[in-house]
Amino acid sequence: MSHVLALSGGVGGAKLAAGLAAVLPPERLTIIVNTGDDFEHLGLTICPDIDSVVYALAGLNDRVRGWGVAEESWQAMAMLRRLGEADWFNLGDRDMAMHIARSWRLRAGETLSAVTARLTRALGIGACVAPMSDARLATLIETDAGTMDFQRWFVGEQCRPVARAIRFAGAGAPPSPAFAGALARPDLGAIIVCPSNPFLSVDPILALGGVRDALASRRVPVLAVSPLIGGAAVKGPLDKLLAERGAGTGNAAIAGHYAGLIDHLVIDRQDDPDAGGLRASGLFVTVTQTLMHAPGDQARLAREILKALAIP
Amino acid sequence: MSHVLALSGGVGGAKLAAGLAAVLPPERLTIIVNTGDDFEHLGLTICPDIDSVVYALAGLNDRVRGWGVAEESWQAMAMLRRLGEADWFNLGDRDMAMHIARSWRLRAGETLSAVTARLTRALGIGACVAPMSDARLATLIETDAGTMDFQRWFVGEQCRPVARAIRFAGAGAPPSPAFAGALARPDLGAIIVCPSNPFLSVDPILALGGVRDALASRRVPVLAVSPLIGGAAVKGPLDKLLAERGAGTGNAAIAGHYAGLIDHLVIDRQDDPDAGGLRASGLFVTVTQTLMHAPGDQARLAREILKALAIP
Repeated sequence: MSHVLALSGGVGGAKLAAGLAAVLPPERLTIIVNTGDDFEHLGLTICPDIDSVVYALAGLNDRVRGWGVAEESWQAMAMLRRLGEADWFNLGDRDMAMHIARSWRLRAGETLSAVTARLTRALGIGACVAPMSDARLATLIETDAGTMDFQRWFVGEQCRPVARAIRFAGAGAPPSPAFAGALARPDLGAIIVCPSNPFLSVDPILALGGVRDALASRRVPVLAVSPLIGGAAVKGPLDKLLAERGAGTGNAAIAGHYAGLIDHLVIDRQDDPDAGGLRASGLFVTVTQTLMHAPGDQARLAREILKALAIP
Repeated sequence: MSHVLALSGGVGGAKLAAGLAAVLPPERLTIIVNTGDDFEHLGLTICPDIDSVVYALAGLNDRVRGWGVAEESWQAMAMLRRLGEADWFNLGDRDMAMHIARSWRLRAGETLSAVTARLTRALGIGACVAPMSDARLATLIETDAGTMDFQRWFVGEQCRPVARAIRFAGAGAPPSPAFAGALARPDLGAIIVCPSNPFLSVDPILALGGVRDALASRRVPVLAVSPLIGGAAVKGPLDKLLAERGAGTGNAAIAGHYAGLIDHLVIDRQDDPDAGGLRASGLFVTVTQTLMHAPGDQARLAREILKALAIP
């Protein structure tokens, strides 16, 4: 019974991560999460992608709002606003508890891996959820208005400034022990790149020391689920980034970006597996419903992926 | 028009501080607050007495519960508990915002005085509210079970262990600029010790460097409002501390504790101004209703005190 390593960003990736957690025994799954978006705000260490994955796996995610915790309230935020503190990044009361717990444990000397393991255990999550690295690798957006921290561009500026380039401060940082350990497992059966933004959520993971080499010299299939549906992103700035890069659109652009790194692309049934020479390039393409709308969709897609990979 | 310096602990003192703020123009009032109870919890710097005074002056205090913020919710605390974090000190969502704002500003290098000025200004408080010191002076309780941080004894142990002694780590620390400044004002008209616990709320203020000397060499009247009503504390561990000390009870014990430091004691009409030789000792005693039940009571008591001090 082989082990599965999933790489995930935030909300979209978190849905498939939750699907995989629903169908695989916990000891057979490692979920490595992007931390390039992490930032310090009001003295708190906020890890948006880790929290999205944790909330999804714990069943705490808000399905209507699409982010954060269900049954959330905003009393602390309203008071912070009244106290004259920055309010451009919205923090719910329940969500705040995660940031407080994480921040003080980090300050007390725990690694982000240890804190994440502690928090996921407390929430009853069996699978290993770990940050991509315990070191800081920060996604920076180069715009005409200067270089911006990711959250300042993404939330503060609502992605409006044209992203001339995306840089990773701290590129080459070591993968976390769980990530390095999963890559080296003799029983590793597959690596699954969840439907996350390739530039913002997956590239930071690939920018860690040795990860591209590990994928290039892979002995196991690497499968990516395209974040596009009907040629467009379900959510977030991916369409805008694709257009601004001018390196093509649609699943061919996704495949092009992952060239040499993946063997297998899962695309939605609304998209043409032959468009842009996708299948002709030698890539194995699976067509199914990748949109995860109902909770059952997550487990269904996870099952289909494992089947396509011949993983029992 | 002279200036008034008030020394306050938490809830009881905060009521009179709010009364003084209601009847004096803001530029004529300095409220200095005990910080001996301050502590670090979950990475946050919590200043219970400053917060009690700030909430009372901003009209945000919960009158039913008797502490904390009105219309409070407890979502973050419930989530922290679920995450396995310590839950012996209850933190409301609105209250949490104060701790977050204060903590990150302190960590960014602001003094507690600067942070407190910032927060009170944001909440529309005109009078100067300042910590007794920007340095750390911590109240420690020596018990048979060992020496305890104040909050661990007060909240965690519900004051159960006998207090063999009360110690101040950091005694001799310098008063805050606002405190030293108010003591040195040529237009200072009176010093008012609010109805707070003498041992736990006022003694820490007196333990700062130079404060006892400044009071002993006073050119202005020093008036204390007794925290006892009908011989007993309205709230808190004062009765227990008085009994455990064995140095008398009632207002005579309060007066004895402040001997040489105060000229004037305000007691409640339920108590006898001659009991224990109170008036015979040469102390000026004013008898009135010191219980502040309705909001109007705070301003009424403040007006009576200013009248007794002949301060217009």
